[in-house]
Order: sequence, then C-alpha cells, then structure tokens
Amino acid sequence: MKIIVQKYGGSSLATAEKIKNIAKRIVASQRRAKTSLVIVVSAMGTTTNRLINLANTLSKSPQGRELDRLLSTGEEVSSSLLALAIKSLGKPALSLTGAEAGIITDQIHTKAKILLIDPRRIKRELKRGKIVIVAGFQGISQKGEITTLGRGASDLSAVALAKSLNAKRCEIFSDVKGICTTDPAIVKEAKKIPSISYDEVLEIAGCGAQVMHGRSVELAKKFRVPLLVGSSFSKEKGTIIKDKTSVEAPCVSGVTLNEKEVKISIFRVLDRPGIAAKIFGSIAKNGINVDMIVQNVSKEGYTDLSFTVSIDNLEETVKVTKRIALVIGAGKVSFDKDIARVSIIGLGMQSHPGIAARMFSVLAKNRINIKMITTSEIKISTVVPKKDGKKSLRAVHKEFIE
Amino acid sequence: MKIIVQKYGGSSLATAEKIKNIAKRIVASQRRAKTSLVIVVSAMGTTTNRLINLANTLSKSPQGRELDRLLSTGEEVSSSLLALAIKSLGKPALSLTGAEAGIITDQIHTKAKILLIDPRRIKRELKRGKIVIVAGFQGISQKGEITTLGRGASDLSAVALAKSLNAKRCEIFSDVKGICTTDPAIVKEAKKIPSISYDEVLEIAGCGAQVMHGRSVELAKKFRVPLLVGSSFSKEKGTIIKDKTSVEAPCVSGVTLNEKEVKISIFRVLDRPGIAAKIFGSIAKNGINVDMIVQNVSKEGYTDLSFTVSIDNLEETVKVTKRIALVIGAGKVSFDKDIARVSIIGLGMQSHPGIAARMFSVLAKNRINIKMITTSEIKISTVVPKKDGKKSLRAVHKEFIE
Repeated sequence: MKIIVQKYGGSSLATAEKIKNIAKRIVASQRRAKTSLVIVVSAMGTTTNRLINLANTLSKSPQGRELDRLLSTGEEVSSSLLALAIKSLGKPALSLTGAEAGIITDQIHTKAKILLIDPRRIKRELKRGKIVIVAGFQGISQKGEITTLGRGASDLSAVALAKSLNAKRCEIFSDVKGICTTDPAIVKEAKKIPSISYDEVLEIAGCGAQVMHGRSVELAKKFRVPLLVGSSFSKEKGTIIKDKTSVEAPCVSGVTLNEKEVKISIFRVLDRPGIAAKIFGSIAKNGINVDMIVQNVSKEGYTDLSFTVSIDNLEETVKVTKRIALVIGAGKVSFDKDIARVSIIGLGMQSHPGIAARMFSVLAKNRINIKMITTSEIKISTVVPKKDGKKSLRAVHKEFIE
Repeated sequence: MKIIVQKYGGSSLATAEKIKNIAKRIVASQRRAKTSLVIVVSAMGTTTNRLINLANTLSKSPQGRELDRLLSTGEEVSSSLLALAIKSLGKPALSLTGAEAGIITDQIHTKAKILLIDPRRIKRELKRGKIVIVAGFQGISQKGEITTLGRGASDLSAVALAKSLNAKRCEIFSDVKGICTTDPAIVKEAKKIPSISYDEVLEIAGCGAQVMHGRSVELAKKFRVPLLVGSSFSKEKGTIIKDKTSVEAPCVSGVTLNEKEVKISIFRVLDRPGIAAKIFGSIAKNGINVDMIVQNVSKEGYTDLSFTVSIDNLEETVKVTKRIALVIGAGKVSFDKDIARVSIIGLGMQSHPGIAARMFSVLAKNRINIKMITTSEIKISTVVPKKDGKKSLRAVHKEFIE
C-alpha cells in the first residue's frame, strides 16, 4: 500500500467553501496518484485563537488538562467537516481524533511530545478504501488524557504519522507556494526553491522565515521523511525537502533577513574556560534563546563577547547579563537595537570557500557596514545597520540567486 | 456520598461572562448544600445550530458518524470552559466527555438511545473532591463511536446520570423560572407551579409548552428521579417534579394553548373493528404524530373520524389520509386550519367529576364554540376557533387557577 500523508493548515480550511475546495483537491489527487491518503488538518482559520481568548477570559492562567481538551475540539471540528465534504463527493472518508489515530504522547499538557504511534487503526481504515482524516496538533497520554503538541504542531502530527505509516511522502499545504530564495514581499525577484535539504530549511526557519514548524523538520530529518511544502490554493508544485547527497551549484539556496533581533555585548570578559558556558547557561536557564554568538580575539587575557536575541527578550536578557557580568567580574554590558541580520544559506558552503568573501564584497560595494559575522557549515550571517537591512537582502539575493 | 446532578442549558452558557456566573453559582450551591456535584452542560448558545449549518453547506444530507463527531464538540468546549472557570475560583473541577462519563449508547447516530451508564469514573473523581462536568447530549456506542442523543437531549444525559449515580435530585436550569400554570406571555396572571407530577409535565409538554425534554421526563418518571426545573439566572426556587401520591385540591395544575394544530376529518367511515388501526397505522408509518382523536357515534354502520396533527404535517397528512380513505371505502376527507386547542391538566380529574362541565360552562359563558373534546385521566382538551384561543386560555386560567 503506497501511502501519502497530506496536511492542510487553518487558513486553507477557514470557511465551508474552502473546506469544499480542499475536499475536491484531495479526491482529485487520490485519483491522480492512486495512493492511500491520510489527511492531517489544523483547526479552521482563527479557531484556536478564539478558544484561547475564551479560556483567558475565564481563567487567569488557563493550563493543563482542561485547556488541551478545549483546544483539541478545533481540529475535531475541521476533521469531521472535511470527512462530510469528501463523502458528499462520493468517496469514503472517516475522521479520527489524535487518540483514535494512535498518537501517544507524554503527559506534558499544551506541549506534549509524541512517544509513539500505533498506526493499526489507520491502516485498517485505509485497507477498507477510506480516506482517513486525522485531527492534527493532538494526541493522548498513556494515562488516557487528551494532550496537545504546541502551536503549529499539526505539521508534527503529519510528519510523525508519515514516519510510522512508512509513507512515500508528507505533503504540507498552506497559503505559501513553497520555500522561496528570500521574502517575496521585500525582493520581488525571489524564486521558489524546487528542492532543498532539511538542514537548510532549519537554518531558514531559524532566520525568522516561518515556512515550516521547526520541530517537524527536525523529525522529518531524523527519520528521512521526504517533505513537500506547497500551496493548497494552486496546482503548482511546491518545494521538496529531503536529504541531499550530491551537492551541486548553485550552492546558495536562500537569503534571509531578520529585523527582530537585538545585539548584546559584554566587555572585558576574563578569557578563561567555562566563562562562556556560565554566561549562556544563565541566559538559557531564563528561557531565552540566543542566536548569533561572536567572541573577539582575546587581548591581555580579556575578550569582548556579543550575541543576539529576539527583541522581545531584550529587557530580561540585559537584566540577566548584567547580573552574570557582576558575578564573573566582567565590565560593561551594552545593547544595540539598530541591527538587521542578513544570512545566506546553502549546503556545502565550506567546499566553496569564496562564498563568504563574495558576500562581504557585495555589501562593501553597496557601502553597507558589517557589524558582526558568524558562519556555520551551511550559513553565513552578517549583522548590518537596521536601515540597510532590506538593501543588503536585495543586493545579496541579486548576487547569489538571480 | 450525597450527589446532586445539575444541568445547564446553552443560553445559560452563551458567553464567557455567563459561564463565569454559572461557575460562581455552582461553587456557592456546593458550599450551601454540602453535596457532591455532577454538572451536565449543553453547547454554548447557538453553537449546535452553527455546526449544523456548516455541515449542511458541505453535504446535502450530513448524517451519521461524522455529524455526531462534529456536534459533540460543542458540549466539549463548554465543559472544558466551565471546568477552567470553576478551577479559577479555587475549586477542583474536571470535565469529561459522554464517553469518559461512561454513557454507553446504541449505534443509531444523531438519535442514539442510552443503553447503560458505567459511573465508576465519575464516582472516583467525586471521591477525590472534584466537581465533575459532563458534556451532555453525547455518549459512545459499544463499538467505540461517538454518538449524540438528539436535540435537547442534554436533559436526558442529566436524568440518566442522576439515576445511575443514585443522586438525590436532578436539577435542570435554563432561562425559565420553572413550570407555570400557563404561558405568561399570554396570561400575565400565570403562576409558577411549586410542585407537579411527571404525568402532568408530560401532558403539558405534549400541549406544546416546551418546558422540558419529553424523553427526559419519561426517564425520570420510570426511575423516580426527582427533578427540579428552575432558572439559572435567579435564586428563586423552581418547580419540583416527582411522583405525587396524595392528590390534593386544587387539582388543575396548568392550562395550555396550542395554536399550531390542524384538524382533519374523514366522513362515512365503516364502523368495523380494525378500521381505526388501519387509518392511524398508515399515518404513523409516515412519521406523523397524531394528537387528539375523536370518533363520533355510529349511524347506520358508519361513523365520522376527526384528529389533529401539527400544522407542519398538514399537506402530507391530507395526502396519506385521502389514500387510505380510498382503500377503506370511506367518504370525503376535509381539514380545518381555524382551530386552537385549550387544555387543562391535573392529577385526579377523574375523582373530581365536575371539572369538565365547569370548563365547558366557562367557555359557553364567554360565547366560545367548542369544536371538539377529548379527555384523559389527567387532561381535558377542547378545540375552539383559532380567534378564540387566547381568550379561552385566559378564561379557563381565571376559573381554575387564579
């Protein structure tokens, strides 16, 4: 049995009319591909937000069991409606909750982790010729309580099901036509990427491009589940995400811009083993994600450290950093909000040593000052003044993609 | 363990604000009565209608399994929200689906019947000090499929739970303050009835007064579950419904008016055993409920038959009746839309033989022509011209109640 898992996001299911269109699409795609289909759905449109607002009105900190039970109804509604729509097109279909689909999670309400999937019920229904529709974003704990997997985690349900069903592919449909070389809203020359590796997508997502749910890509990578990211409103083929074994030119897949970060610097840090761990350990303990980290060359046993965090965490990060600076006997702590991060992402950059130099020279030609640089195997990031962010993005995109 | 089951209707839970108020009410009533509470909830406001409309947009005849799964989410939302609201008042609470509450039904989707209730989970949670909130209107079939019990059947869930938990009382709260002697919208002198028998309530409901879900009263009667019908918006005590063993004056409990019926007559029916069964058998087979039936005295082996049905069924009833009249060789079939039915209801009318005569004389005094009469042990119904319906109701209410 050849199985494909398809996932449809909330904006694709926002109205009865849209659900009807998705139903037609599903029936047509099954006819075309002659596969067994498992469909994973999100809640209709803004349902989840509406439910969270209701819960917030009734409780200062709604959480745990009851919140999960509340939120899980959103996907149950869309799964039943989609099943009704497909059945009214004359095709057998059946909806399942996460629990019925065999998605077993741990007990951590509102951000449960999938422990295992028992795919027997789904397989049985597929064998009976049914299109199986699974409510995404939810599972059941071993104690029999409904859990949810965190915002956006219907993608995760889809990937996990694809893995456990040994599906040929997991297709994620939303309102974007695929993964682009950069943000089309800023660079109109942006192109859809036909094929990209898991690692590159993870780096792109880390750069603030919300193409796919990060945990889902990680899971797909771990189990080598081929992904297709595409639009539920067009027939155009989306972007394939898979392991890339042969690296070919062009090696730069995408260019990203992040204008929502801030740079923090600690001066005169004793250059001694364990100091960096102390600093970033304290920050992590406060639940703050650090992005770029740069440590300058040591002078007279001291060094300066800079790192970036999301602008939402500015205040708390400065507070924590000042406290730890005091403890470790470092100097001044300062921050810089006037930054934008421009990154290029691509497999095998290491094997093309000229790439970084080419990027810096493009920025120089455009008289853009680089404040900070980091590189990894598949990403080169530069921090530039905020006012130059979009200009840098366009220049770099032109150089590497167009 | 003294248990009380309370049921709150959709209009009592229509907004977050209303849910908050119901939560306060529940916590206060538990403090006052020192009982264990099981709360049964309907879906918020018009949720069920909204879901049905969505389903109708997607499918010409939505039915069965998927519709039940869709509709059942309404009560799951209100049960979780009410649990959150009660918990935020500092009281332990927990929501359960019909399935989790142990409500096992047959397989007939959208109008399932309760087969049995396994109350162990509820009892366990009550013992832990929890206020248990059960999603009404739903259960689970022995095959493990979600079922619903028919519109308005949250009352039924409540009564069935009260029975299986051996509860002291089942309290049904909605937007009416109790059961009244007649419709207060027509007769401003209408009074709330403090106490009434199951049979009387069934007759009142049959007369079109939508005070309580008929199947629920029947179930309560069968298992002698004491009911309280009251308002969820006031502290005033509602109406107690129970078996009445001692019949006391005044024996007329309520007066009802039904303006939504039509009278059908078949003339020259052969007065022979089995003929009435043939006629009403055919009508029943077409799913039409007949209310009053009157057969006049036989003349020369023939009789005339009249009966009333809901005006919604007029066309079909006339069609069916004409067909059967042909088969049995009867004469003309006619109908009369110009009717209103006024009934008085009360236990032990038979032991007060003057009641019927008093009713007819009140109508005569008011120059109201009686078109049709039927009597039962606890009800006397008269059909009058439609224009005299409200006038008759007021006159009869004044005579027997005020």
